Amino acid sequence: MDIILQFCRHKLLPRACATATSCKRLSSCAHPLRTSHTPAPPPSPLPLVSRLFQPSNLREGQDSGDLTCRSQRLMLQAGLLHPSNPGCFYYLPATVRSMEKLVRLIDQEMNAIGGQKLDMPALCGADLWRRSGRWDLMGKEMFRLRDRHGIDYCLGPTHEEAVTELLASQANLSYRQLPLLLYQVTRKFRDEQKPKFGLLRGREFYMKDMYSFDVSEEAAHHTYQSVCHAYGRLFDRLGLRWVQVQADMGNIGGTLSHEFQLPADVGEDRLLTCGSCSFSANVELLEAGQTDCPQCQAGTLVESKGIEVGHTFYLGSKYSEVFSATFNTAQNKPTLAEMGCFGLGVTRILAAAIEVLSSDDAIRWPGLLAPYQVCVLPPKKGSKVVALTGLAEELALGLGSLPGLRGEVVLDDRTQMTIGKRLKDASQLGYPYVVVVGQGVAEQQPQFEVICQQSGETLFLSRDALTDLLSRVETV
Amino acid sequence: MDIILQFCRHKLLPRACATATSCKRLSSCAHPLRTSHTPAPPPSPLPLVSRLFQPSNLREGQDSGDLTCRSQRLMLQAGLLHPSNPGCFYYLPATVRSMEKLVRLIDQEMNAIGGQKLDMPALCGADLWRRSGRWDLMGKEMFRLRDRHGIDYCLGPTHEEAVTELLASQANLSYRQLPLLLYQVTRKFRDEQKPKFGLLRGREFYMKDMYSFDVSEEAAHHTYQSVCHAYGRLFDRLGLRWVQVQADMGNIGGTLSHEFQLPADVGEDRLLTCGSCSFSANVELLEAGQTDCPQCQAGTLVESKGIEVGHTFYLGSKYSEVFSATFNTAQNKPTLAEMGCFGLGVTRILAAAIEVLSSDDAIRWPGLLAPYQVCVLPPKKGSKVVALTGLAEELALGLGSLPGLRGEVVLDDRTQMTIGKRLKDASQLGYPYVVVVGQGVAEQQPQFEVICQQSGETLFLSRDALTDLLSRVETV
Repeated sequence: MDIILQFCRHKLLPRACATATSCKRLSSCAHPLRTSHTPAPPPSPLPLVSRLFQPSNLREGQDSGDLTCRSQRLMLQAGLLHPSNPGCFYYLPATVRSMEKLVRLIDQEMNAIGGQKLDMPALCGADLWRRSGRWDLMGKEMFRLRDRHGIDYCLGPTHEEAVTELLASQANLSYRQLPLLLYQVTRKFRDEQKPKFGLLRGREFYMKDMYSFDVSEEAAHHTYQSVCHAYGRLFDRLGLRWVQVQADMGNIGGTLSHEFQLPADVGEDRLLTCGSCSFSANVELLEAGQTDCPQCQAGTLVESKGIEVGHTFYLGSKYSEVFSATFNTAQNKPTLAEMGCFGLGVTRILAAAIEVLSSDDAIRWPGLLAPYQVCVLPPKKGSKVVALTGLAEELALGLGSLPGLRGEVVLDDRTQMTIGKRLKDASQLGYPYVVVVGQGVAEQQPQFEVICQQSGETLFLSRDALTDLLSRVETV
Repeated sequence: MDIILQFCRHKLLPRACATATSCKRLSSCAHPLRTSHTPAPPPSPLPLVSRLFQPSNLREGQDSGDLTCRSQRLMLQAGLLHPSNPGCFYYLPATVRSMEKLVRLIDQEMNAIGGQKLDMPALCGADLWRRSGRWDLMGKEMFRLRDRHGIDYCLGPTHEEAVTELLASQANLSYRQLPLLLYQVTRKFRDEQKPKFGLLRGREFYMKDMYSFDVSEEAAHHTYQSVCHAYGRLFDRLGLRWVQVQADMGNIGGTLSHEFQLPADVGEDRLLTCGSCSFSANVELLEAGQTDCPQCQAGTLVESKGIEVGHTFYLGSKYSEVFSATFNTAQNKPTLAEMGCFGLGVTRILAAAIEVLSSDDAIRWPGLLAPYQVCVLPPKKGSKVVALTGLAEELALGLGSLPGLRGEVVLDDRTQMTIGKRLKDASQLGYPYVVVVGQGVAEQQPQFEVICQQSGETLFLSRDALTDLLSRVETV
């Protein structure tokens, strides 16, 4: 019988410890105060390209399935995604890093407008959806299942019902507590007839869905604009070109709706914009073949295509009425809350950004979302400057200890490959900064070659200038 | 027809902008480089207790369902959880904050031992599970569903099949790339017959599941110990008393397994520990009624109870054989990978920590996991020292700008309530530090009353000493 390993914080190496009840030291571990005895956070190892479960390690033999658009092809080739069931993907480590950055950005923007993050169950009872009338309305797009007791559930594709019931359960909600903006970033499910374009139209995806509760229609419109404003800021911070267009209410309901679209030829949405005024709308809103602008009556509508990455709805009291979600006014009168709901396609934004920023053979990220900011290339094994290998490692460690760059610097230690081959990989993967430790570093006045892949510039910098440049990289 | 709002980063206020195609400025937004024109991160507002969607705001009228254990009762009363379907809960904002901290800690520990984070689909095809033989084995505990095309899926309660297939799809995986440690932190589903104890036994929960791939049994054992070590460090950093015991393999399979248990009377696991040697095991492993230690043959086994918060398994080639997950040896010979799998119950750790650290009427958190670290109490409206209200706000803002305390300081602005009532709430919620801005602050030498709720101490500190104390609070 094997020896049982037990640990306590006073001795970090595995040991055959006395049992829990007899170990005196263990009892002191119950104390919740952090003291000097508390283990420090562990050091993070320097990420080595040869050990990353990603791109070039996986490229060979990769079955990339139906290659239907640029982002899907690039993400499969680079080992960012791996196909699973139709419309479902393994998000590989670099994608998870990028997605977590995007979620932090979204959290910042939602927090700044008073959003509070919660997490609602994925399993939604059929009774809730029957009350809103959407159990039947949603049709085959909703995944449905029964539990062991025969109770019907769906996998929530959206959570208007769930959040409104939550609000309705709060007795004595006061007008002073509104506006209330609740959001979550969770995995959503939709049984698409034909999943396609990788993360752009999948059956499992991450979505940020926010729900707002206000005291009046006027206040709700103010909240609506505040969220639209935050969405705009988010896309601006990502450096993405975007448009906001009038949109159809779909089966969510409500009386006012906009989409945030990234212009792209692969986009499934057709947009009409007027050359003479501010009118811009999804083609679904207009009559087929309409070419004159309904707003200014003067301009002609021009069609373009876009990828929908956000959608906002003013819902009024459609759901608060069904679930009796009320607040008390200053006169203590129960009144239905005015609602809005606001979605951002998290995984879709990732893929759409790659779609619009990349070339056919090289991924380009919004700077803030690149999985790693810097890649350092040591010399090839057996090259004339192989003695610089240690310096390259030390450089990578040093850059990785800059405040904004913790965990953001990788070392491409595949030194059996030429610099050229590794540069090609680095270009495909889209690290914003690639630092070559080569011949120039062996000179009297060492010069590091720095390829700024976002701008395409190549710089030759002293170590100090390199550190200065990279310490100014914005990260999230 | 309403005016369309469009924004671009050069003008952050909503405006009736020209259309996308005609707006010259919009095209410059496509540039992925971050420049001085990029919007800065927005400021985070100071969290006000009156506006938090949590505790005291919700307490009245709360339907807390079956109150079966301390952590569930406290979490429902304090507005950390709200019940949904049986075994499913809304995680309210304070819980999400705490859970995100726990996930960051887990990420640190997994990263330190070389773990790489990915994200696998929740929908797992029945074919995968049939190949391992677990489709039938799992019985009613697995949620099953059919998609619109009649294909069978389960909601993955665990992902041995999925991750092994992912590995198997990587052609030419080299022994140099092992050990490979892949993990995810995702929502899991299990159709429990009788969900109970709140987050301790639910039907939806968050789990960290890691899967390891090694070149040999010896290497796999080394990885196994490395993960156990990391788990021990994690619980130590949380200040939790824990034990590691031998455990049953269950339907996961394999030849070696341990559980990490927090000793607690409410625990569903019965543990036997020997008074004379290091033997410690789940009672499931022994014959009913056995009281003599199988290891030393001398000691007597004593029974205690525990909450299982982690589980480790050495799997050998059980799954790699089914899915042909191989790597190439130095001699280029395809060889089955040796696997391990390692789980941590993320939401369960939260509830279990509250269970073991709290009293009957006051939540106590592991310091690192408290949703907010500091609560500042301004004077009551109409009190003699009401003039200090502004100072309290300024203090909260100042403390909240300390490096480790960004977003961690709340102001209890419910000044219609007495300090006493608010202190009672603060005690129930378990902020590690409560700062009272009262009479003492109006003295010649201002003294802030600081209640350190983890230790129960009350200190009277100058502003400098207060800042010094709180700037040393460890956060994650």
